[in-house]
Order: sequence, then structure tokens, then C-alpha cells
Amino acid sequence: MMIDSGSAKTGKMVEQKNRLLLETIRRLHRRKATRSLQKVLAKAYPIDIALVLASIPDHEITDIFNTIAEMEIRAEVLTRLDVRSRDQVLSETQEDEMTAILEAMPPDDLTDMLGQLDQELAAKLLNGLERESKQEVEELLQYAPDTAGGIMTPDVFSLHSNIRASDAIVAIHDLQDVETVFYLYVVDEEERLQGVISLRELLLAQPDVLLRELMNSRTVSVTTDADQETVADLARRYELLAIPVVDGHNILVGMVTLDDIFEVIQNETTEDMLRMAGTSEAEIFSDSSFKIAGVRLPWLFAAFVGGLFATQIIAHFEHLLTQVLALSAFLPVIMGMAGNIGVQSATVTVRGLATGTLTVQNTMAVLSKELKVGLILGIFYGAIIGVFSWLVFGNLDLAKIVSLTVVTNMTGAAILAILLPMFFHRIGTDPAIATGPFVTTAIDILGVANFFIIASLVLGVAP
Amino acid sequence: MMIDSGSAKTGKMVEQKNRLLLETIRRLHRRKATRSLQKVLAKAYPIDIALVLASIPDHEITDIFNTIAEMEIRAEVLTRLDVRSRDQVLSETQEDEMTAILEAMPPDDLTDMLGQLDQELAAKLLNGLERESKQEVEELLQYAPDTAGGIMTPDVFSLHSNIRASDAIVAIHDLQDVETVFYLYVVDEEERLQGVISLRELLLAQPDVLLRELMNSRTVSVTTDADQETVADLARRYELLAIPVVDGHNILVGMVTLDDIFEVIQNETTEDMLRMAGTSEAEIFSDSSFKIAGVRLPWLFAAFVGGLFATQIIAHFEHLLTQVLALSAFLPVIMGMAGNIGVQSATVTVRGLATGTLTVQNTMAVLSKELKVGLILGIFYGAIIGVFSWLVFGNLDLAKIVSLTVVTNMTGAAILAILLPMFFHRIGTDPAIATGPFVTTAIDILGVANFFIIASLVLGVAP
Repeated sequence: MMIDSGSAKTGKMVEQKNRLLLETIRRLHRRKATRSLQKVLAKAYPIDIALVLASIPDHEITDIFNTIAEMEIRAEVLTRLDVRSRDQVLSETQEDEMTAILEAMPPDDLTDMLGQLDQELAAKLLNGLERESKQEVEELLQYAPDTAGGIMTPDVFSLHSNIRASDAIVAIHDLQDVETVFYLYVVDEEERLQGVISLRELLLAQPDVLLRELMNSRTVSVTTDADQETVADLARRYELLAIPVVDGHNILVGMVTLDDIFEVIQNETTEDMLRMAGTSEAEIFSDSSFKIAGVRLPWLFAAFVGGLFATQIIAHFEHLLTQVLALSAFLPVIMGMAGNIGVQSATVTVRGLATGTLTVQNTMAVLSKELKVGLILGIFYGAIIGVFSWLVFGNLDLAKIVSLTVVTNMTGAAILAILLPMFFHRIGTDPAIATGPFVTTAIDILGVANFFIIASLVLGVAP
Repeated sequence: MMIDSGSAKTGKMVEQKNRLLLETIRRLHRRKATRSLQKVLAKAYPIDIALVLASIPDHEITDIFNTIAEMEIRAEVLTRLDVRSRDQVLSETQEDEMTAILEAMPPDDLTDMLGQLDQELAAKLLNGLERESKQEVEELLQYAPDTAGGIMTPDVFSLHSNIRASDAIVAIHDLQDVETVFYLYVVDEEERLQGVISLRELLLAQPDVLLRELMNSRTVSVTTDADQETVADLARRYELLAIPVVDGHNILVGMVTLDDIFEVIQNETTEDMLRMAGTSEAEIFSDSSFKIAGVRLPWLFAAFVGGLFATQIIAHFEHLLTQVLALSAFLPVIMGMAGNIGVQSATVTVRGLATGTLTVQNTMAVLSKELKVGLILGIFYGAIIGVFSWLVFGNLDLAKIVSLTVVTNMTGAAILAILLPMFFHRIGTDPAIATGPFVTTAIDILGVANFFIIASLVLGVAP
């Protein structure tokens, strides 16, 4: 398959290819041309089959799924299926057939899937497995899902350091269960990780050189309890295709492969974006509106309390409003401008902290830059809004108040939106979580208060 | 190196390791212990050296950098250096030495770096290169930087399909320039891509089998003009370590490797987050506050115009404010609640569209779910704010107005924040760009208008 870009996004081409696959599969299935359907399915990538099944009516899914000849392919399709189709297949496939599919699944994927099912079904499926697989899953289930142990596969290829290169090649011949081999991990007699050899190095080695002499002992590894984000960071930093996982005694117990690393990166990003917006990943996996509302409710609460607080501030300054009623007309634009520049600065900060471009060394430089940016934008918009309010409302005091407020609020918001995430980062709180509700609410309250204080000063009224 | 998690984030451990490296390097450098320094640098990962150099005073950087013995390592460190340290090294290293370093750099990294320098310096460095390297860079420069051609390396390992496996292994022995080998690409006499063989398959093959018989012809490839995001999507979807790049005639011209794919994923994510906040990636690479202000200014303009529009709406309803002055006190909380739920829904939508979990098939389901979520949260907060306003301001009409407004605004905002990004996605506009300013402004204006319309109705005054 060549992905041809033509002019626009190539992504659409992939979809088109899948639309073709979808039509072919449905046509063959309706004609009951099982042989041909089997051939088409054997030629397609599992992920494409999974995507196609997601668009097929419920009552056809299981039948088509079970037409796939190889159990390994069925297992991989099942892993990558959307929740609805997966549950359909699980409920309609016979128990012994499902067991065969699950046996063909890599243990880490199997563990992930069982963790997503309801407990009763998961226990039933687990009990149907062979003793070895069951044990593997039970071991993996002991690790927290967001740790190296939780995402690793226990099927890792390792050999003792006193084996010769030629024997290592023979050993690779006999491999079955291992997911993907790019690296050969070298261990000592106690299974402790000693080093790593890339497949290319093995290919180029003299037949009777010992792995000990061949291996690179500068190995990057993680312990089972390492945060999954750390694993992804290491893979990115050192450009690794897989990372070996060891226990507290440096004994090799598994490895995290590229597919898991991609998934972690995708999930962590989604998590960061959702957190900044004041919701969480739980939302995406939830079907119940009440549950989603429950996830969002506490985040909204911070903004709500802040809003009520602002109500009191405004009520306190009611005498100013009676004097210049038009002040209230400017509340939305004044809050909006500070809020928006705040979100911009906060996003740059949170992302800079996440990708490591924002460091202790350059904090002061970033801060002074942000101060200038806030001032420039504040003066620009403050000048326009001053002229606008003077022309439209014909009140020079009003013009002074709103323009001064816009300058100070926008500058203050830019600074606050960089200091708060940094503060949270320093005290060990995820800045993405704290930024959304805190920064916005703080900017709102301080902004409104500043507005009325400036108004009091300009109008010569006691605050 | 084993990354030990201990209890908290492992990331900190990496930093600690680098702090140790930093201290060692500076100590050895101050003592002028060049030999020992060279050894320490040879044992460290290039990325770690780059991170350490970023924390070293300007006047020491170049000296330490040029202590690195191998040109390949210097090249890799230079590629991964921060802008300040890189410019320092570039300005202080002698021309012929810099040429040797650049010659050792993979052509795609070299092209990227030259693209980031000022034109004069880039031209000078380019002219110093050997003819072959110069030509490679000039060819790569023809591709847009965000396409497969722009991120690929032209050094790709390919062999003709009528070669035997044993000869292929010999060919790998003789390889020099190629970045990383995990796949062997198979081409025909006209260099057209025919298939792919993994290194493992080659390792296990009978010596005299032809590559033609060994290769997998179900190859995923992209054309040079494919969007870089597409390349990353394909790598993730098919779990590939490298993707071959072909021209319009299916002739193999390069490959995109994993390091580039990781970079694309990171950049695209940053881009999406910054766009949603109404700024752009240009900001991160810019040193000038005026330039940054220029990037943010147009986005803020949408919100600004919206805010001025809101001013006019409020001025239009001034007679209501004279009647119930406390109405204005509720403007911030009413705008804030709708704005916040809007950002939540919009983020879930934008992220769902980006990761493909939100599809045409489930739009209606998501929409009705979002409607319910908005209603639940709206009723919850509407009830509280109603009671609050009644207790604090003792005005039942006010209580009715604000609670009704919160219910309708929050529900409306949730729906709008899902429909607008979907609409932009459908018409081919990046929903992340459009969402920030448009959704927020639309929610603000409609929310304020709705507030006063409800107030008019409850108070029995003509709007």
C-alpha cells in the first residue's frame, strides 16, 4: 500500500482505502463467500480490520470477526477494536473459541483488556485460560496500570552473557511467544540485566564471540514501579524501540515495547489537555452522562466559587455602578481579554514544563519576556478600548478606567499565568491540573477587583 | 544506567544523574583534565551531554563541546543542543572543524539545523560542505518542512529484489552512512519500492533465498509531499519503526525514522494545545516580545471584538440594570460557568477528532450525551446560584433570572462547543485553531444576550 498524498491530507486516503475494505468485506459477507472473505481479511492489517468492524452493524460483527483464520490476528483485532464492537464479539463468541483467541494475545494486552471488562466477565475469561497465561495475567495485574510493570509484556527475549553469537542466532530461530525482537537483552546467572545487543550488531558479529564481549553495558532500564510517563520520556530521549523492565534486584522481568510507548504518549497528551480544561480522562471512557457530569463538577466548582466571590466584589462597588452605569457593560470584555491572554501564557508554560524547554535556568528570561508581551498587548488593546469607550459612551473618565484596567489586567494575567503553573510544578503538583481552574479564577477575581479599584481612584470615590 | 523509580517520578532521577554528569564535566574542565573529560564524554549519551551543556556558562560551552573526540558524537550533541548553546558553539568553532562536524551529521538533521539559522550563516556553512552533502541538503531543502520529504533522511538502505539473503547480510556489513537499520527495503531495477524485510527475517532466512521471495510486499509508504502528521499517524497505527518515502513514480528516495516521528508527535501536540489557546508554535521559537505579541494579537482580536459587541448588548439593556442593579454583579459568574463548560466540551471534542475516537458514526450519541451533561451541571449550578442570589440579594426575580440563565447557558455552551469544532473539522479547517477564539467568543456573546433576554421576560420589560 502506498499512501499517496495528492494535494490534501493523506489521512483521508487511508480512510478511503478502509472504506473500500469495508465495502468488500460486507459484500463478501452478505454473499456468504467465506473463502474470499478469509483471503481479504488475511491480507489486511489488523488495525484496519478493527477500524472497519467499528462501522459494521452489530449483528454482522461477530460473524465477520470469527471468519479471520489465524487466532493471532483475531487476538490483535480484538485488542484494537472499539468498546462497542469488542463487547459484541465477547458476548457472542463461544467460550472455548474465545479462550483460544485470548491465549494468542500478548499478556500485556490481555491484562489491559480484562481490566476494562466488568469484573464477573473478566474473572470468567481468566478462569478459562491455561495455567501459564493465567499466572502471567495475575502477575501483571499486581502492578498499577500506569507504571512500567502495568504496561510491560513479560515475554522478553534474554540470553546469558556466556553464550556465543552463533548460538544466540539459533535461539532467535526458536522464539515463538516474543512480541517483537529488535534488542537482545543479556543477563547473568541470576537473570540480572547486564547489557543489550541490537539485532544488527548480532547479525554482524563473529560467530564465536561471547555475548558478554558484544553487549553494550550502558543499558537504559526502568523498575516495575517507574511511572509510565518516565518510560515514554526515556524512549523519546534515547530513541529506543523497547525498554527493559527490572525488579528491585535488577532482575529482568519484562519489557515495554513501542506500541505501548506510543499509547502512553497519546494518553498523557490527552490527559494534559483535558486537565487544563478541567476534566479528566475518565470522561472519555464513560458512557453515563451523570458520571461525566461528576468528573467535571468539582473543576467547575472552583470557577463557580470564584464567580460568586466576584459577585460580592461588584456588589461592594455598587455605588460606582450607580454613578457610571456603563462600567458594567465593560465587565465581559475586561474579563475576557485578561482570561484569554492568561490561557495563552498558561498553555505555553504548561507545555514548556512538560517538554522540558522551560527550565530553572531560563525562568527569569521567560518571565521578563512574558511581562513585555503582556504590556505590549495591554497597551495596544487598552488604547483601542479607551478610544472606543470615549467615542461610544462619550465619557472620558470611563475611557481612562477601562484602558488602564485593560493594560494592568492583561499584564498581570500574563505574569500570573506563568507563575502559578511554575509554582505548582515546583511543589510537585501537576501544573496541567492546577492551571485550568486556578489560573482562570484567580485572573477573574483579581481582574474585577482591579477594575473597580481603578474606577474608584479615577472617579475620586472611596473604594 | 538503571532508572530507579524509588517512590516518586523517575524523571527526577534522570535529572539527578545529569547533575552528577554536569558537576563531573565542569570539575574536569576547570582542572584541564582533558583526557579524563574525554573519557567521561565518550561514555555519556549525546542527549545527556546536550542537556548538561545547556546549564553551563557561555564561555565554557564551546571548549567542552570540542573536547568530544568523535565527530559523530559532536554532530549528535549539536543537533540536540538548545538554541543559545548551539549558537555559542557555532560562533566559536573554527570553520574547518565545524565543516567536519556538519559532515558527520545525518542530512535531515543538518537540513533542519541550517533552516533554523540566519540565512547568511546557513549559506556560509552550506558552502563549506563537500559536494555530495551540499547536494543532499539542497535537495531536502526543496521539500516543505512539515512534509515527509522535509523530515526524511535520504540515507536509506535498499537492495535489489534479485539479491540473495547472504549477500544482503554482507551488504549490511559494509554500511556506513545509514542512520539505523531495522528494515531492509527491497527495490526493482528502477529503484521502485517493492517490499520490506525486517532484520529478524533476514537473520532467520536461508542463505541463498532471494530477497524477492523473502520480502513482505504489503509495504506502508508515503510520498514526499505527505503531511508529517500523516507519517506519524501511520507509524502509530501500524506500529512501524521507520516509514519509506517514495516520489511520484514510487521510487524510494528516503525514510522517516523513529526520532523524527517522536518529534512530529510532540510538535503536533504542542501545536494543537497552543492553537486551542489562540497562539502558535512560532511563539516558542521567538525571542522578541514584539514578535510574540504579534502572534497572539490576532487571536485576541476575535475575543476583543466579541467583548465590544457584548458591551453594546449590555448598554442596550441598560434600563434593566437601572431596575435591578445586582444583575451586573452576576455577569462574571454567568460568563465564567458557560465559558468553562464550553472549554471542557471543546477540548474533549478537539482531542476526540485528533485521535479518531470521535467519528461520524457516534456524533449523535456524543451530542446527546453532551446535552445531558450540560443539563445536569446547569441544573446543579443553576439551583445553587438561585438560592445564593435569593439569600444574599433577597430578590426572587433576580434568583429566577440567574438560575434560568445558568441552566440554559451551560447547556447551550456544551452543545455549541461540540458543534463548532465538528463543523470546522467537516469543512476542512483545523478544529484546534478555530475552537479557542470562536467558541469562547460565541459563548460569551450568546450567553450575555440570553441573560438579558431572560431578565426582560422575568421582569416583564420589553427587551
